[in-house]
Amino acid sequence: MIVEVISIGDELLIGQTVNTNAAWMGTAMREIGADMDFGTVIRDEENDLRDAFERALTRADVVLVTGGLGPTKDDITKHVLCDYFNTQLVENSDVLEHVRGFFEARGRKMLDVNIMQAHVPEKATVLHNEFGTAPGMWFEENGKILVSMPGVPYEMKYIMREHVIPRLQARFDLDKLYYQTLQTQGIGESYIADRIESIENEVREAGFALAYLPSPGSVRLRIASRDTEGNRKAIAGFIDLIAATMPKHAFGKEEDTLEEVVGKLLREREETVTTIESCTGGAVAAKITSISGASDYFNGALITYSNEMKTQLVGVDPAILDDQNIGAVSQQTVEQMAVGGRERMQATYGVALSGVAGPNGGTDEKPVGTVWIAVAGPKGVFSKKCLFESNRERNIRRSVLTALNLLRCEILGLNQ
Amino acid sequence: MIVEVISIGDELLIGQTVNTNAAWMGTAMREIGADMDFGTVIRDEENDLRDAFERALTRADVVLVTGGLGPTKDDITKHVLCDYFNTQLVENSDVLEHVRGFFEARGRKMLDVNIMQAHVPEKATVLHNEFGTAPGMWFEENGKILVSMPGVPYEMKYIMREHVIPRLQARFDLDKLYYQTLQTQGIGESYIADRIESIENEVREAGFALAYLPSPGSVRLRIASRDTEGNRKAIAGFIDLIAATMPKHAFGKEEDTLEEVVGKLLREREETVTTIESCTGGAVAAKITSISGASDYFNGALITYSNEMKTQLVGVDPAILDDQNIGAVSQQTVEQMAVGGRERMQATYGVALSGVAGPNGGTDEKPVGTVWIAVAGPKGVFSKKCLFESNRERNIRRSVLTALNLLRCEILGLNQ
Repeated sequence: MIVEVISIGDELLIGQTVNTNAAWMGTAMREIGADMDFGTVIRDEENDLRDAFERALTRADVVLVTGGLGPTKDDITKHVLCDYFNTQLVENSDVLEHVRGFFEARGRKMLDVNIMQAHVPEKATVLHNEFGTAPGMWFEENGKILVSMPGVPYEMKYIMREHVIPRLQARFDLDKLYYQTLQTQGIGESYIADRIESIENEVREAGFALAYLPSPGSVRLRIASRDTEGNRKAIAGFIDLIAATMPKHAFGKEEDTLEEVVGKLLREREETVTTIESCTGGAVAAKITSISGASDYFNGALITYSNEMKTQLVGVDPAILDDQNIGAVSQQTVEQMAVGGRERMQATYGVALSGVAGPNGGTDEKPVGTVWIAVAGPKGVFSKKCLFESNRERNIRRSVLTALNLLRCEILGLNQ
Repeated sequence: MIVEVISIGDELLIGQTVNTNAAWMGTAMREIGADMDFGTVIRDEENDLRDAFERALTRADVVLVTGGLGPTKDDITKHVLCDYFNTQLVENSDVLEHVRGFFEARGRKMLDVNIMQAHVPEKATVLHNEFGTAPGMWFEENGKILVSMPGVPYEMKYIMREHVIPRLQARFDLDKLYYQTLQTQGIGESYIADRIESIENEVREAGFALAYLPSPGSVRLRIASRDTEGNRKAIAGFIDLIAATMPKHAFGKEEDTLEEVVGKLLREREETVTTIESCTGGAVAAKITSISGASDYFNGALITYSNEMKTQLVGVDPAILDDQNIGAVSQQTVEQMAVGGRERMQATYGVALSGVAGPNGGTDEKPVGTVWIAVAGPKGVFSKKCLFESNRERNIRRSVLTALNLLRCEILGLNQ
């Protein structure tokens, strides 16, 4: 079963609204094993609507249309649908009653334009919209299905969940898709490809699809296949095999985040962490505390932005900071920050960062993007020099992820 | 000039990634006065790519394609483009040099798949991609333009800003729109509408469009018109008029951010700020230091997440923290944090926050979303109780913005 989404609305095309509806429907279709092969965004314009319906019904089995059903004048979808399916609008008493109740419950006056919402194409099956006044409409012709729904996200989702998905499942013999995702940090797409080349070939020979989904500082690997018991097991095997080739980088599965993974490890071990941040200015601590319940393993942290504060708050040796050949962005400094901060804050682990976030402040020896990260813990202190890029925001983001991953590796004994 | 966007990628269709690129490009095209009339999302699949190119080049003047250019095996766009435009891949020495430099600068090894990124269709004009290894490609045939760009948002944006937009502006005679934006914090859309009702009527009578663009904690007001000298002046006047009705809330114009505005004020006055954060866990400091050059007015900060740290680091009275009727989320605590932290860190201003970020930890007296914020400065300490919402992420975001705006008002003498 091939599905196409048509999203109607100027606000989507001019970027005033991001098309989250299409993403939600894509996920919903994937979950029931339907293939979402096309997405189209068009204006509220008669010819464009007609063309899009025609094209979609030619190449897909099911066309999900959102938007263009509001009471205001720029919404012409219903009229074009009538025309397209050669039918006419008739008043639907169930819908009218619902619309009336809707306004009564809110103590508001029903307007003529609202009464018009109870006029539906005669050929369409009406899909009740509990949360709004525009009903969903289900058309069937020549074995193809077109469903028109309002663009308001929670109304669309209600109609999809209550009506469209159950009807599609009853109607089509769907071969559900199965996915597993591996989350990695600190290794680029092409390096992963190089490292897992033979596994990747096996994955493809097994008929599965492997996708690389990169974002700054991390790459997700996703393997997909038809959902069968055997395939699930095989994919899980491949994911574990890939993870085993890079234990320092593969930190989680599915929607895991580093802050969750690290938080879970710390809670299990009844350990705590503190951060001593310079170039990231609190971003690592903010990430750690973005998780509800972080107080179980995080008591506080220090932001030592200036050299003075590095000395005053965590006792970094001023001689090191003043030494032109060492300075604030150095192994010595970041290790002293980590060790000193860990003691000061009485934490199991101290994570320290000092670097040149940019875009200014770089030198030949320490270009923008140079970041030293150290983790101090019961086993001592481990540090690493990173060379990121020229963009401040991405340097900070990559520093945060790298620091959290180094902490994870330290907890698990993977750093040496 | 009619524009169509084609977004390539399974991850968009199955909803794993929301199509923010298309929204961004829609905004960019609107700003230069181009009409974005169609958006299409397709898979990395030869026939679908070919069909989409064909259709788009029939109905639009300019086709912007994103995605499908990574170094890994699932990306076939470049080959389909060669086929479609009847050309072949040739090695481009500029791109090769850039790719090589890209890897050298990061001290990493260049792989064969990376060298392949320097192979570009002979007929295409190469658009330099400063931030990545896949260049943009500009095709022209029969008066139509197709531009292929990587799907990584910051790479796409760089290529659009540096190459595509200037080229389109040089090529087409576009009726540019003019915009001015007022940035506000801490006042809701409907309250603004109420306050500026008569100004808004004048704006509309002048034939200009006024839009409210809300996001958690802030609302942007945007006035738009055709770009003429007279309109520019009139819009600037309206923006100033609106700003004058709410000095505590109107903090900037255009793309100003609170962290920039506050940073500028502090630098001008040669003053400094520190933060003492509980519920925000470093997010305010991270926001302040997201600005390059923040070291001019920010030396460091303290994250006092636990009660113990509130006492140890900034001397909050333990009796207050232990008092069931006062506790950590209270005016007393947050004022002591601000005053104590300001002294400890020798800063002109101390900004302190303590609240219930949620989703757990709320009580009847202090529901989730209750956040106390204090600013201590030369004139004393000012504090405010906020009641945000149930979502942790949005609570933190709104806390950060509110704290920065309270700091701005304190610096400007607007708090009382």
